[in-house]
Amino acid sequence: MPYISLKENLPGITGLLEYRLDTALPIRQLTHILLRGESTLTEGERELIATIVSNGNECQFCTAAHTAAANQYLDPVVAEKVKTNLDAAPVSEKMKALLVIARAVGRNGRLVTPELVEKARAEGATDRELHDTVLIAALFSLYNRYVDGLASVTPTDPAFYDRLGHILKDKGYLPSEDRYATL
Amino acid sequence: MPYISLKENLPGITGLLEYRLDTALPIRQLTHILLRGESTLTEGERELIATIVSNGNECQFCTAAHTAAANQYLDPVVAEKVKTNLDAAPVSEKMKALLVIARAVGRNGRLVTPELVEKARAEGATDRELHDTVLIAALFSLYNRYVDGLASVTPTDPAFYDRLGHILKDKGYLPSEDRYATL
Repeated sequence: MPYISLKENLPGITGLLEYRLDTALPIRQLTHILLRGESTLTEGERELIATIVSNGNECQFCTAAHTAAANQYLDPVVAEKVKTNLDAAPVSEKMKALLVIARAVGRNGRLVTPELVEKARAEGATDRELHDTVLIAALFSLYNRYVDGLASVTPTDPAFYDRLGHILKDKGYLPSEDRYATL
Repeated sequence: MPYISLKENLPGITGLLEYRLDTALPIRQLTHILLRGESTLTEGERELIATIVSNGNECQFCTAAHTAAANQYLDPVVAEKVKTNLDAAPVSEKMKALLVIARAVGRNGRLVTPELVEKARAEGATDRELHDTVLIAALFSLYNRYVDGLASVTPTDPAFYDRLGHILKDKGYLPSEDRYATL
């Protein structure tokens, strides 16, 4: 049961974002810019960053939600491997290096070493890609703590996350009318 | 030296927020709402939440910056004790309980136990205060990782943070013309 009173039909982050709409708006805007805005990283790659960070922070809701979102864009084996065996994940070497950085950021920013950055640069990562990887990882470190720090509900039915993944692909992250009608 | 090319006269978070203005805007708005908007927690108390989280995440820039901001509102001994010996800090019992929760969130949201929440409630904390404490702690977990994950510069001169603390009190967190003119 959540530590504060939230709408019962809105588990995980969804009820929290309804609880305080004024703080939810910039959180949604930032997420939409980073995950759906113009980028040399694909939407699927950016959802993988959200996934690996949430998995590292052991946030079950966020991990399942962004795995489902990544699966909207990529073969499900990709997110699965990213979580369980990154070295063997079928992503580019550049993406692998960026995901290693994201995973470090999720634990603590100080764990990002010059060597990790050099490796990503050697694989072609740009300043902007490094910036966005770190900021997306930092943003999901916020989400993970927001969701778990208030003990919001984590559905156990995989179909729930499949429906949420569809919403995150079809509607993105900005507020929208009847956003969760299909949840 | 930062991992990406940032303006040399803007250390810590300041250069990062100039690097990508479109992502900076919602980050600034969220921070301003939470730290300077209407609340039953004072500005000083909210800066203490930013301080204890940054200190726990070992983000030297953010810790020094928000200690300086807290010192604009409170006797400097308060932030000092909050960082080094929370039990002995001259803050209310409610605030102490909220700061314990914030410190836990900074490490991982899953560390917030029903007992910690019950303690805060027994001291009079409301749903909204619990929510805002967790979200502020989550937001500074983002900042700490953004700042350290890109290795932005950490000035060593205490006078720098004193000047920044003045700016954070006088101008808040929204974008403003010549924001860092006195830095």
